[in-house]
Amino acid sequence: MDNYSDKPQHECGVFGISSRMPNEAARQTFFGLFALQHRGQEAAGIAVSDGERMALHKGQGLVNQVFSEDVISQLEGKLAIGHTRYSTTGSSSLENVQPMQFNTKHGPVALAHNGNLVNAAELRKELLDQGMGLVSSTDTEVMLAMLARAKGAGFIKKISNCMPKWIGAYSIVILTLDGIFAARDPWGLRPLTIGSLSQGGYAVASETGALQVIGCHSIREVNPGEVIDLHNSALIVNQALPVKQPQAKCTFEHIYFSRPDSIWDGKVVHQVRRRLGEQVAKEFPIEADVVVPVPDSSIPAALGYAVESQIPYDIGLLKNRYIGRTFIQPSESSRKKGVDMKYSPIDQVLSGQRVILIDDSIVRGTTAKRLVKLIREAGAKEVHFCITCPPIIAPCFMGVDMSTPEELIASNFGIEEIKELLGADSLNYISLEGMMTAINSIEGYCNACFTGTYPFEVNQSNTKYQFESSKNTDGQC
Amino acid sequence: MDNYSDKPQHECGVFGISSRMPNEAARQTFFGLFALQHRGQEAAGIAVSDGERMALHKGQGLVNQVFSEDVISQLEGKLAIGHTRYSTTGSSSLENVQPMQFNTKHGPVALAHNGNLVNAAELRKELLDQGMGLVSSTDTEVMLAMLARAKGAGFIKKISNCMPKWIGAYSIVILTLDGIFAARDPWGLRPLTIGSLSQGGYAVASETGALQVIGCHSIREVNPGEVIDLHNSALIVNQALPVKQPQAKCTFEHIYFSRPDSIWDGKVVHQVRRRLGEQVAKEFPIEADVVVPVPDSSIPAALGYAVESQIPYDIGLLKNRYIGRTFIQPSESSRKKGVDMKYSPIDQVLSGQRVILIDDSIVRGTTAKRLVKLIREAGAKEVHFCITCPPIIAPCFMGVDMSTPEELIASNFGIEEIKELLGADSLNYISLEGMMTAINSIEGYCNACFTGTYPFEVNQSNTKYQFESSKNTDGQC
Amino acid sequence: MDNYSDKPQHECGVFGISSRMPNEAARQTFFGLFALQHRGQEAAGIAVSDGERMALHKGQGLVNQVFSEDVISQLEGKLAIGHTRYSTTGSSSLENVQPMQFNTKHGPVALAHNGNLVNAAELRKELLDQGMGLVSSTDTEVMLAMLARAKGAGFIKKISNCMPKWIGAYSIVILTLDGIFAARDPWGLRPLTIGSLSQGGYAVASETGALQVIGCHSIREVNPGEVIDLHNSALIVNQALPVKQPQAKCTFEHIYFSRPDSIWDGKVVHQVRRRLGEQVAKEFPIEADVVVPVPDSSIPAALGYAVESQIPYDIGLLKNRYIGRTFIQPSESSRKKGVDMKYSPIDQVLSGQRVILIDDSIVRGTTAKRLVKLIREAGAKEVHFCITCPPIIAPCFMGVDMSTPEELIASNFGIEEIKELLGADSLNYISLEGMMTAINSIEGYCNACFTGTYPFEVNQSNTKYQFESSKNTDGQC
Amino acid sequence: MDNYSDKPQHECGVFGISSRMPNEAARQTFFGLFALQHRGQEAAGIAVSDGERMALHKGQGLVNQVFSEDVISQLEGKLAIGHTRYSTTGSSSLENVQPMQFNTKHGPVALAHNGNLVNAAELRKELLDQGMGLVSSTDTEVMLAMLARAKGAGFIKKISNCMPKWIGAYSIVILTLDGIFAARDPWGLRPLTIGSLSQGGYAVASETGALQVIGCHSIREVNPGEVIDLHNSALIVNQALPVKQPQAKCTFEHIYFSRPDSIWDGKVVHQVRRRLGEQVAKEFPIEADVVVPVPDSSIPAALGYAVESQIPYDIGLLKNRYIGRTFIQPSESSRKKGVDMKYSPIDQVLSGQRVILIDDSIVRGTTAKRLVKLIREAGAKEVHFCITCPPIIAPCFMGVDMSTPEELIASNFGIEEIKELLGADSLNYISLEGMMTAINSIEGYCNACFTGTYPFEVNQSNTKYQFESSKNTDGQC
Repeated sequence: MDNYSDKPQHECGVFGISSRMPNEAARQTFFGLFALQHRGQEAAGIAVSDGERMALHKGQGLVNQVFSEDVISQLEGKLAIGHTRYSTTGSSSLENVQPMQFNTKHGPVALAHNGNLVNAAELRKELLDQGMGLVSSTDTEVMLAMLARAKGAGFIKKISNCMPKWIGAYSIVILTLDGIFAARDPWGLRPLTIGSLSQGGYAVASETGALQVIGCHSIREVNPGEVIDLHNSALIVNQALPVKQPQAKCTFEHIYFSRPDSIWDGKVVHQVRRRLGEQVAKEFPIEADVVVPVPDSSIPAALGYAVESQIPYDIGLLKNRYIGRTFIQPSESSRKKGVDMKYSPIDQVLSGQRVILIDDSIVRGTTAKRLVKLIREAGAKEVHFCITCPPIIAPCFMGVDMSTPEELIASNFGIEEIKELLGADSLNYISLEGMMTAINSIEGYCNACFTGTYPFEVNQSNTKYQFESSKNTDGQC
Repeated sequence: MDNYSDKPQHECGVFGISSRMPNEAARQTFFGLFALQHRGQEAAGIAVSDGERMALHKGQGLVNQVFSEDVISQLEGKLAIGHTRYSTTGSSSLENVQPMQFNTKHGPVALAHNGNLVNAAELRKELLDQGMGLVSSTDTEVMLAMLARAKGAGFIKKISNCMPKWIGAYSIVILTLDGIFAARDPWGLRPLTIGSLSQGGYAVASETGALQVIGCHSIREVNPGEVIDLHNSALIVNQALPVKQPQAKCTFEHIYFSRPDSIWDGKVVHQVRRRLGEQVAKEFPIEADVVVPVPDSSIPAALGYAVESQIPYDIGLLKNRYIGRTFIQPSESSRKKGVDMKYSPIDQVLSGQRVILIDDSIVRGTTAKRLVKLIREAGAKEVHFCITCPPIIAPCFMGVDMSTPEELIASNFGIEEIKELLGADSLNYISLEGMMTAINSIEGYCNACFTGTYPFEVNQSNTKYQFESSKNTDGQC
Repeated sequence: MDNYSDKPQHECGVFGISSRMPNEAARQTFFGLFALQHRGQEAAGIAVSDGERMALHKGQGLVNQVFSEDVISQLEGKLAIGHTRYSTTGSSSLENVQPMQFNTKHGPVALAHNGNLVNAAELRKELLDQGMGLVSSTDTEVMLAMLARAKGAGFIKKISNCMPKWIGAYSIVILTLDGIFAARDPWGLRPLTIGSLSQGGYAVASETGALQVIGCHSIREVNPGEVIDLHNSALIVNQALPVKQPQAKCTFEHIYFSRPDSIWDGKVVHQVRRRLGEQVAKEFPIEADVVVPVPDSSIPAALGYAVESQIPYDIGLLKNRYIGRTFIQPSESSRKKGVDMKYSPIDQVLSGQRVILIDDSIVRGTTAKRLVKLIREAGAKEVHFCITCPPIIAPCFMGVDMSTPEELIASNFGIEEIKELLGADSLNYISLEGMMTAINSIEGYCNACFTGTYPFEVNQSNTKYQFESSKNTDGQC
Repeated sequence: MDNYSDKPQHECGVFGISSRMPNEAARQTFFGLFALQHRGQEAAGIAVSDGERMALHKGQGLVNQVFSEDVISQLEGKLAIGHTRYSTTGSSSLENVQPMQFNTKHGPVALAHNGNLVNAAELRKELLDQGMGLVSSTDTEVMLAMLARAKGAGFIKKISNCMPKWIGAYSIVILTLDGIFAARDPWGLRPLTIGSLSQGGYAVASETGALQVIGCHSIREVNPGEVIDLHNSALIVNQALPVKQPQAKCTFEHIYFSRPDSIWDGKVVHQVRRRLGEQVAKEFPIEADVVVPVPDSSIPAALGYAVESQIPYDIGLLKNRYIGRTFIQPSESSRKKGVDMKYSPIDQVLSGQRVILIDDSIVRGTTAKRLVKLIREAGAKEVHFCITCPPIIAPCFMGVDMSTPEELIASNFGIEEIKELLGADSLNYISLEGMMTAINSIEGYCNACFTGTYPFEVNQSNTKYQFESSKNTDGQC
């Protein structure tokens, strides 16, 4: 979202609703997407059906910018799905914005997807070889095209029949003229939860926070490998594929992606983050004067560290809320002075102090280096950098943009070297075991970005921009 | 284009170029489309290939609004096609703007189309039944999808193999990574001409005017039923289907659609229009004081009438050039006075005169009625309305939006009744024979809108908005 | 308006209305400005008063773009004035768009102005020396500031008291909370006419065409030197200054500026232009085959020439209606071929012919040269260029942008040289006397641009951009 | 800024710079304004001088939206001032956006203002009575107009001569062709600080945070009553008026307005806020389980309360970062459930807990009521609401929009009643004395909003929209 970000890029949010209230579906979807805005700020879309017709509105920008009261009012129907997306490029790639819609022999079908198929290229080639024309180069369109020709009576069957061919991460919602369907890959890589609406009907979303915001109760996860028909009077479920053992839930949802108030794998994310901070304090008992978070995502971990270590917690860095996409370049003289537009230090909190700085992750290291410099210039005597995840050494192929191995600082340098590069007095990554302890799990999580071991075979040459003959980008999401 | 228009709606323009000059193709296409702007003001697009990649830019608005120097500069390559379109609705139907592009097993393919297939619904159903997903409801996508799976080595063959299945009007240009192709239906309904560039290479366009504007010479028509590969060193041609006998060239290109400087069926349109005016003068020798055209399209006919009748020609009506799409409603009092925002009379030309008013056509009759009132209020003693085409009694299914039979005034009333409705002193439609004499042809033209006899069987229930399950409109063009 | 234009720049239009109908004033003003659009396409504004409050809306663009139904509906009141403007630069100079409004001790006052004061710099200095702050550098603000402090009870008096100090061209309309006023300079340089509304009340406009469009009758000119209060039940008039003898009405209103249907100095402009063509034919009886106008403004003159000379009139040049402000550069190869985006020749009208080309004026000569080349390349045997005004040798300081003396071709070259530069076979400017004969006047007109003799002393160093210390431009209008 | 806000509206920020680096002034001003964005999100502007010309760019929106790299690059010169504004209405009131610029006999002068003159209406009337015309109804224009005619050689003198007539709050920066000046009212109501640039030259800003961001050092306040010429080699100062005793610095800068890292009256705002929390804890020792801040402004106070009370601090409310200006209305069913788009509770932090909720202020009480409801619905057993300022009972006339007395909940109800209205278990406002203790001052502050006692006589009928005859609003800032 902003030029200065050195975080794994957020990875899309999906939402679906089967409501009993006439014409409320698109409005509720808007609020659901709004609550999932942190998962993708680049584009958004809503598809809606009133049983007779399907309508679709999508555009680039924040949910709030893409949808106006006027647009929402015109999206009539009881069934809707939506999507927020982290990355599209160029005006012509509006085609890549989701939901994607196809007219098929079964009528119009729309699909929104969070994840990434690692065998998308093979599946796509198969479709093209069969004489199919495809408008984009996304795995989302591949899934939609396979559904259009899938065997089986009804969409539960069709989806179930496709799933064995899909290798990778996918949490999807599907809209037809008269139904909403949700499905999740058998590894359980990306979250997907379902809740019931107080006025009847169901909603499904990437995070529980988006269900709470529209007033859902009795929320449960969509099981790995499960397909669900959100019929408005009942959930019809089918375990299309057995749950893979071990499962491979994304650890980074706890570390950074999810809202603090969301529940992922049965755990409140805010609490997990506090425990991650506590665990770091246990692993690295540092003598210091103040514990300072890198706002906002590391605040719970810093609180945890402070309580565990008995070192006072304070706010030492302010984050500018108004940083947007494009940005005026600072003049040379400002740059030399280490002036920063995104973070401002509070000198009086930091000056003369031994500072423990808590951050959730380091990807390329660019921001981390700037922060250490900033804190030192504010007068800190020592800067101890604590990270609530292990070193990131491998890219993600399951729907997260983690940069390339060449860019990953921990893929290229040892911890001691990184410490030197950042200019910190110490650099303290939580251990893999410690992290899993804080999460309260021993297995069932995908830690590929820390270990390089993927839950399935991955062709690492499948980079993001693989379909070169047309400029439309491959939207990995 | 404007709210007051009572003309058959213009019907899209296509353009293609295979240039020898690096990176000039998109620029030349821009100028070609600019010269075809009168055929469609609603949307425009250009697809370009540099041999390695295809890029596409399209949007709603005038060619001048959709393309900036910046955009044109980025569309690199020697091969390009373009399209201007007369009608799209809603932001989501950007998908319907042409050229339309597909990724296929043969690489990316883009297509731009002027015309309308009367069997599009049947062809579309066939594709859907085969498990295909389609993003729009246009016949253009149907053609593209059929090409993606067509048999035959090379695109000349593929296009040739599809053409027997396409019933209706089509003048198309097709872009692949390494070639430009053009084809025209065997009836020759819509124009399509080809010219050679002075620096080598070829261009193809809906009208000769667009070829002249980029400096083409030795221009000829694409034959009905012909497929052409615009190889940059030579034209490779294939007569895919025999020319239908009789041909069915659109008369309305002469009457109204084409630029006056274009050559259609070997005749300069401006001269045809003068002769149409002369012919009306021969058929209806009226005693009057002044011949006045309805600007702009009827000016040549009025000149022809004046010369033939020896009655002075003058400008009695001004057309406001700044009328745009949306318009403030006049107040009640202005409306009562017959004040008109599009046309202003010059009272001193009309006052006390017996006026012969020349127009090219009457569709619904709304504008004609306003004009008669305006001219009378300017003081004319008599208003004799002369029309350079016969009464329009039937809709067009070959790519022109002529309104529905219910709206066509001549489909519902006799000439005498129309005269009364318009308030004219006489109403004089050219005869069908007289019109053909002025065109210098006896047969080979489609006059279905005047006769109700179509060149092939037409299912009249195939209205414009036939694919109801999704709100994307059927772009008949 | 367009990049290719080589005409004197149009020079603003003003409109005012005192209506008896509640809330109709802004709407009528919109239509009035719409009819004056040819006098300025760069910006537009309307100020309205309901007796209690004054509201103002203005913006850059066409009248149609600046005002929407929504905006017009919110401009409530029975009194309104409006302005269309030919030139503003930069976003910050929205301040220069008219009407300009001041809050004064007499309440809010708004003013719209067509013309130019030649002593604006002196008047402005006086105001500044008195400690006044001014936001723009326009003479319009100078006039407004002088009115704010003018002596006299009521605005008729105030305006009358200011007029002796204003040297130059001004046709102004003034809005206060409870009145509309109009005034015209004593030379009568710029037009200003007044009409009564059928439902009671009055309107005033730069041209009669704008009064007709809203249904006015009994139209008369505002006299030179006259101030009028458009009280809604009667016109209250004051001859503030005696009419200067001789008057100095702008000849160019006949030649080029005004709408053909407007009446200027009692003459219908269309008819004057026909007579100008006839006069040229009398002065220059050329042997030729066809008379061709440069569209659109020269069409009446070409008709006049054709009738007088008995040489057939025909359309040999088409003007592209879609040329806008910014424009893609043609490629080198197109430019060499003399391809033109604004004008297209009809070869069949011109080829092998001796052509008489009629244009109303030549300023810099750039367009004229292109047109001769275009017509020759279309095959004309001879090109005889006839101009319905004498050579323009001096700039205008009375509200028209005629280019600088350095740019005026006739200020630098003799007729024979110009003929050579243009590449014409003959070049035939109407004589000054002939022009006045065609206008039906011997004196009372300003011909300064043809003679260099101004109606009052002019400081020629007062160029358009004289107030250098701030970047806001001096909007001469 | 957002529809849900129940805070005193922020009150504009000003910035000025006299740089030694060519063409860096506008860029530095951009970054200064960016750091002052929290003081006004509605509009922004920068005026710049290169010694020869003054240029001005302003617009509605965030600093980041109003200025692009392109715009900044064109604003050349070593001298610049800027402004961010909290409120403007309607497109036509772009005139009210600051800096405001006048051309005067001393050349162009621009002024940016934070504050409000309580005698603006009287001063304005004086100017109008002298025959002045004013384009807006702001006190800023009044100040500028008075400067244009002020006596005295040089602007230090002119400003000094005007200051005795200005009653109210003003921190102003003034740009002339060759100088930057700053001045502050003798009560010291609004902040204004000055710093020296490392490369030479000076900058002045509403907050120290904006000076730090561009790398200033040796920062001091502009004294109350002082005028400063920021000559680039030295500060030239003049104590135009004696400092009023007691001073009247705005308490709310500590409570809520200023950035936590800014220094106001010699105190770091973050630390003052911590002490305010500590003080509340001392005054109200509540038995509870968790201390929760209303994010973001109350976080330091909550930390202070937690440390002082030894009750754990935690994050119980999340604030949505993407809330913008316009907002889709939630459906009825969502609204009933107390679902909130701006704040989300973390149930697991609040459920079953006795919660101390810390907020900095209550204005109308609407947000406070929603928050108590939200926290109760999350399962809190008790909600104790603590406020770090006393009850707000009187509007501010010194540049802050505090709502009208009718809307102020504490102006209409006692504390016990408010507690009931909010539904809290207890409601605990800090005492006035306690607040001043936390600020470390006994006097020198304006507490009019808590006491109703203003530092000078205030005509309470001088409401925000007092100049009724023109729709331009009075921009109190």
